[in-house]
Amino acid sequence: MTIQSTPRSFAPPSSHEMPEAVQNALERVESLMLEVVDSEVTVLRDASRHILSAGGKRVRQRLTLLAYTAVGGSDPERAAPVAAAVELVHTASVVHDDINDHGIVRRGRPSINAIWGRTFALLTGDFLFTKVYELMAPYKDLNIILADATVALVEGETLQASAVKANNFTREVYNRIIALKTAALFRAAGELGGRLANGAPEYVEAIANFGYSIGLAFQIVDDVLDLTGDTEQLGKTAGVDLEQGRGFASTYENDADAAEQEAEADVVTSLKEKILQGDAINEAHEQANRLVKMAIAYLDVLPASEAKDSLIDLAHQIVERSY
Amino acid sequence: MTIQSTPRSFAPPSSHEMPEAVQNALERVESLMLEVVDSEVTVLRDASRHILSAGGKRVRQRLTLLAYTAVGGSDPERAAPVAAAVELVHTASVVHDDINDHGIVRRGRPSINAIWGRTFALLTGDFLFTKVYELMAPYKDLNIILADATVALVEGETLQASAVKANNFTREVYNRIIALKTAALFRAAGELGGRLANGAPEYVEAIANFGYSIGLAFQIVDDVLDLTGDTEQLGKTAGVDLEQGRGFASTYENDADAAEQEAEADVVTSLKEKILQGDAINEAHEQANRLVKMAIAYLDVLPASEAKDSLIDLAHQIVERSY
Repeated sequence: MTIQSTPRSFAPPSSHEMPEAVQNALERVESLMLEVVDSEVTVLRDASRHILSAGGKRVRQRLTLLAYTAVGGSDPERAAPVAAAVELVHTASVVHDDINDHGIVRRGRPSINAIWGRTFALLTGDFLFTKVYELMAPYKDLNIILADATVALVEGETLQASAVKANNFTREVYNRIIALKTAALFRAAGELGGRLANGAPEYVEAIANFGYSIGLAFQIVDDVLDLTGDTEQLGKTAGVDLEQGRGFASTYENDADAAEQEAEADVVTSLKEKILQGDAINEAHEQANRLVKMAIAYLDVLPASEAKDSLIDLAHQIVERSY
Repeated sequence: MTIQSTPRSFAPPSSHEMPEAVQNALERVESLMLEVVDSEVTVLRDASRHILSAGGKRVRQRLTLLAYTAVGGSDPERAAPVAAAVELVHTASVVHDDINDHGIVRRGRPSINAIWGRTFALLTGDFLFTKVYELMAPYKDLNIILADATVALVEGETLQASAVKANNFTREVYNRIIALKTAALFRAAGELGGRLANGAPEYVEAIANFGYSIGLAFQIVDDVLDLTGDTEQLGKTAGVDLEQGRGFASTYENDADAAEQEAEADVVTSLKEKILQGDAINEAHEQANRLVKMAIAYLDVLPASEAKDSLIDLAHQIVERSY
């Protein structure tokens, strides 16, 4: 397995340019994240920068900055600290995920777990979670939005682990998991951007719903890619979901009562083939496409703008991506 | 090994009564913590309540409520959410500690790790850390104080793990570790209480310094007890520090260049005997007593009150405790 060591950008060709002010704010978010994780305890700084500088898709921070701009905000750099906080919640959660899943590749690099070991990975995740609240401290009314979304994320991860353990990974449970672990933070990312710009309540509501819907679509596509992609292409350890008895495809197995919780490698391969021949992948893509369509419809209330066009692009990129 | 299953209170006989309003507020903190960890994801609720209802010494929340009252606050229940947040930071950190240290007993009960396993212990710790910020969300100016103290706590834990790994657990490193991992949160506990009551700046400063000093003393005594106590008496897995090559006593070993990082059980026993015969324990007690004396001196600027007397009691209890 070759591990790609250079960060990759998540930007399929699109018909619209991202507004320049948003581009600049995105760069500010990157530098802010690297600054905020500075620490005299070098392992925390190094491990944090290792994962942050690897890139990642940065969907959530883009969502916050574009939401801010699309509802009328004039200076997206003002939203950079909050966008950084949103992205750090996600980053902290993947660091802890890689402990629980024994993931050894993340964002095209060896995971923190793989390089520094479990103890330091756990502490680095805690460090990142805590840095979120240093960043959010000045935003009194907005704090609760991100705190609630982070609670939902942890609840979703826990529900997932519980469902795997209890072997009841049904479609209904799956839908609840992706709403909690992914869509809640996407919703918050949109809402926070909208609120920071003092957007009209109907605009903020629209952008929050947009975030929620693309969040669901994002997770469904992620689960499909976990199944169909390989580790090099995805930039993270592939096949984890099926191996762990979870993800979109696992609901098929359980619904068909054919799951083996502790599947061996060859069992995984044969299940994978079965699922790839079946309707699961197509169905997942259809569901993701429906969600993206719905998400874009929420934006109808917003006035036309470059930022609105970029949000629509973002929604399309989520379903069209190959990693 | 018998595991005590009933919560124990940390209240050696003292010469002063805790003010009644503070007693009531302490009860409010307990119920608030149990309420705030409610979740539809039952494992998070159950694991959180398991550790919270086991009691613990509750030094930090008492410090916050007494600080609030001692600087002139009239309704300590107002400080209950912040006191609960401070206590939850500590609780989250011990849940994660028990993963890294393989601790199987905590607060006289099996640890979350021991009952629910590593994955759920990790997620429960994340859940508790996040609930802290739900509780703190309304307190704009105070958020940064607790966030900074939590960052320090994580840095202290990390520095400790790094020092063990690098085998450079010197007295200087030890002092830095206990300042970060314990004294910073004690300082914040005092400062937050003082600020919530809008105490005069010199009162708030005094109570913050008091917290810092008793925090250092608390950790030193804790490390001595880890060495001299047994698991039943302490209510948590004893001997962890020495086994892991850290704590007050380990600075002796390293200074004497006699440490074996991966000590076997019999090596631990012989080291323990050596240390118990040496000066380390006495020296640690003297240091803790000096710190407590200094802490009490900080309180000189505060007007006489029941709450002030209770703070002085608290400081004495910290060095006189046997668990």
